Amino acid sequence: MSGAEALQQQSLHQLLLFMDLGGTFVFAISGAMVGVQRKLDVFGVLVLSFAASSAGGILRDMLIGALPPTAISDWRYLAASVAAGIVIFFWYTPMSRLHRPILLFDAAGLALFSVAGAEKALAHGLDPLMAALLGMVTGAGGGVARDLLVARTPAILQSDIYAVAALLGAALAVIGTRLDLPLVPTAIVSALACFALRMAAIHYGWRLPVALSPGDQPGDQPDDRPR
Amino acid sequence: MSGAEALQQQSLHQLLLFMDLGGTFVFAISGAMVGVQRKLDVFGVLVLSFAASSAGGILRDMLIGALPPTAISDWRYLAASVAAGIVIFFWYTPMSRLHRPILLFDAAGLALFSVAGAEKALAHGLDPLMAALLGMVTGAGGGVARDLLVARTPAILQSDIYAVAALLGAALAVIGTRLDLPLVPTAIVSALACFALRMAAIHYGWRLPVALSPGDQPGDQPDDRPR
Amino acid sequence: MSGAEALQQQSLHQLLLFMDLGGTFVFAISGAMVGVQRKLDVFGVLVLSFAASSAGGILRDMLIGALPPTAISDWRYLAASVAAGIVIFFWYTPMSRLHRPILLFDAAGLALFSVAGAEKALAHGLDPLMAALLGMVTGAGGGVARDLLVARTPAILQSDIYAVAALLGAALAVIGTRLDLPLVPTAIVSALACFALRMAAIHYGWRLPVALSPGDQPGDQPDDRPR
Repeated sequence: MSGAEALQQQSLHQLLLFMDLGGTFVFAISGAMVGVQRKLDVFGVLVLSFAASSAGGILRDMLIGALPPTAISDWRYLAASVAAGIVIFFWYTPMSRLHRPILLFDAAGLALFSVAGAEKALAHGLDPLMAALLGMVTGAGGGVARDLLVARTPAILQSDIYAVAALLGAALAVIGTRLDLPLVPTAIVSALACFALRMAAIHYGWRLPVALSPGDQPGDQPDDRPR
Repeated sequence: MSGAEALQQQSLHQLLLFMDLGGTFVFAISGAMVGVQRKLDVFGVLVLSFAASSAGGILRDMLIGALPPTAISDWRYLAASVAAGIVIFFWYTPMSRLHRPILLFDAAGLALFSVAGAEKALAHGLDPLMAALLGMVTGAGGGVARDLLVARTPAILQSDIYAVAALLGAALAVIGTRLDLPLVPTAIVSALACFALRMAAIHYGWRLPVALSPGDQPGDQPDDRPR
Repeated sequence: MSGAEALQQQSLHQLLLFMDLGGTFVFAISGAMVGVQRKLDVFGVLVLSFAASSAGGILRDMLIGALPPTAISDWRYLAASVAAGIVIFFWYTPMSRLHRPILLFDAAGLALFSVAGAEKALAHGLDPLMAALLGMVTGAGGGVARDLLVARTPAILQSDIYAVAALLGAALAVIGTRLDLPLVPTAIVSALACFALRMAAIHYGWRLPVALSPGDQPGDQPDDRPR
C-alpha cells in the first residue's frame, strides 16, 4: 500500500468513526425522547437510547459477518448512547421545546448512519446495490428497533419519506465512492441530501402513495397510533 | 466427486434456488397484502414484502453462519420480493377477490420455504432434528417478522395449525433425503404435504388445543386483534 | 495446559452447562405461563417457552460469532424448554397458585443466565465491561423476546429493577472471575445477588426513577398494559 493510499484509508476510517459516533449520539437522543414520553424508567430510557442508536449498525455487522459488531466491541458507542440518554432523562422538557425535536435528531441520525453504513459495506467488498441497501438498513434499523420495543408499528412503514431518504444518501455515497470522488465532500454532500429530503418531506408533508384497498370508506383512518 | 454426484449436487442447487425464489415471491405477496390492508405507503409495502419473504431465510443463514445471507447477497431474492410488492400495490383489489388470498399464498410460501430451508440446513451438515427445526424456522420466520412489524401477536402463535405444517414438510424432506430418495419427488411430496395440512386446517377449522387457565370465564375472549 | 487448568476448564464447562440448562427450564416456564394466559395453542406455548428461554443466549452467541448458537446445536436446550412448556400446558392452574409465579421463575432465570452469559463472554475473550453487558443481554433478552412476541412493550423497559439486577449478577461474576476467586462459589454468590435484588425490588416495590415530561398531568397513567 502506498503512502497516499494509507492516508486515504486512515481518513476514511476517521470519517466513518466520526459519522458513526455522531449518528449514535443523535439517534440515541431520539430513542431517549420516545422512552421519556412512554414513561419508561431511567434504565428503560438508556436501553431505548442504545437500541435506537445501535440496532441498525449491529444488524449490518451481523449480516456482513463482522463479529462482534463494532457497537458491542468499541466502548465509545455505548458511551455516546448513554450520554445522550442521560442528557434527555434530566433535560427532556427544555430539549422538547425545540421544534419537533425528535424528528430533527432522527433525520440527522438517519443521514449520518446511512452514509457511514454504505461506506462500511463497500469497504467490506459488497457490491454497490447491496451496499446502498445495507446503508439504508443501518440508517433505518435503529428507528425500527426503537418503535418495536414500545410495541408500535415502526414509523418508517407508514409515514412520510423516511427510508427513501436513507436510500438516497446511501446511494449517493456509493456512487461518489465508486467514481473515486474525494471522500469527505462525498460523505458530507450525501448526508446533507438525505437530511434535506427528510426535512423537506416533513415540512411539506410529502408522502409516498398508498394503495387503494376495498375496505376504503369515507372517514376511514389509517392505523396510526399517536406518535 | 464423481460425475453422478456432481449432477446430483447441481440438481439440488437448482431445486433449492427454484423453491427459494418461488417461496420468496408468494410470501412477499402475503406481506404486501398485509401492508396494503394496514394502509402502509408504497415503501412500507415493499419493506413488508421483503420482511415476509426473507426474514426466515436470513435468520436461518445467520444461525448457521452462512454470512452474508443469500437474500442479501443474491439480487434475485430482492427482485422477486419487489416484483410481488409492486403487483399487490397496484392490483390489490382484483387479487383480494380470490378466496382468502393471504392464507393461500402464505401456505404456499410456508411449504416451499420449509422444505428448502431443511434441505439447506442438511446440506450444511446439521443433524436431522435441527435441520427439520431450521426448516420450520425458515418457513415460519417470515410470517412472524411480518406480524411483528405491524405490532400484532404473530398469527403462528394463536391460530390453527401453521408451524406444525411447516415442521411436517421439513421433517418429510429430511427423512426422504436421509433415505437417499430422489430429490425432486421428495421435495415436491414434502411441500405438498405441508400445503395440504395447512389448507385442511384452515378449511376444517382444525386447531391445536389451548390450555385451561384459572382466568377462563364465560364470554372471555382470547387476545386476538382483528386480522 | 496443566492438569489443574484442565480440571478448572472442565468444571467451568460443567458449571456453565448446569446454569444454562437450569436457566433454560425456569425461563421456559415463565414464557409458557405468558403463553397460556394469552390463550395461545399448545404450539404457541412451546414457541414462547423456547423464545423466552433461548433468545438471550442465541443473541449472545450471534453477537460473539459462536455459530451455530448452543441453543440450536445442542438438543438438551430444546428438550429443557419443551419439557417446561408441557408441564405448564397441563398444570398451569396448580402452578399459578404459587405467589406471583411468573415473577419468581423469571427472577431465577435472570440470575442463572446473567452469570452464565457473562462467564461465557469472558471465556471467549471479551473485555470485562462488554462481558458484563453481554451477561445482562443473555439474562434479559429472553424476556424481551417473550414480550415482543405477544406484542407488548417489554416489561424490562417499564417496570421495577430488572436489567439492573441482571447487570449486578453479571458484573459480580466478571469481577470474581478476574480476581481468580473459586468458580462455583463466585457463580452461586453472583446469581444469588441478582435474584435477591430482583425479588427485593418486587417485594418492596422499588422502582427506578422516571423522567418528568411536559405532558405529565394529575391522573396521567404510564403506558402499561395489564401483565
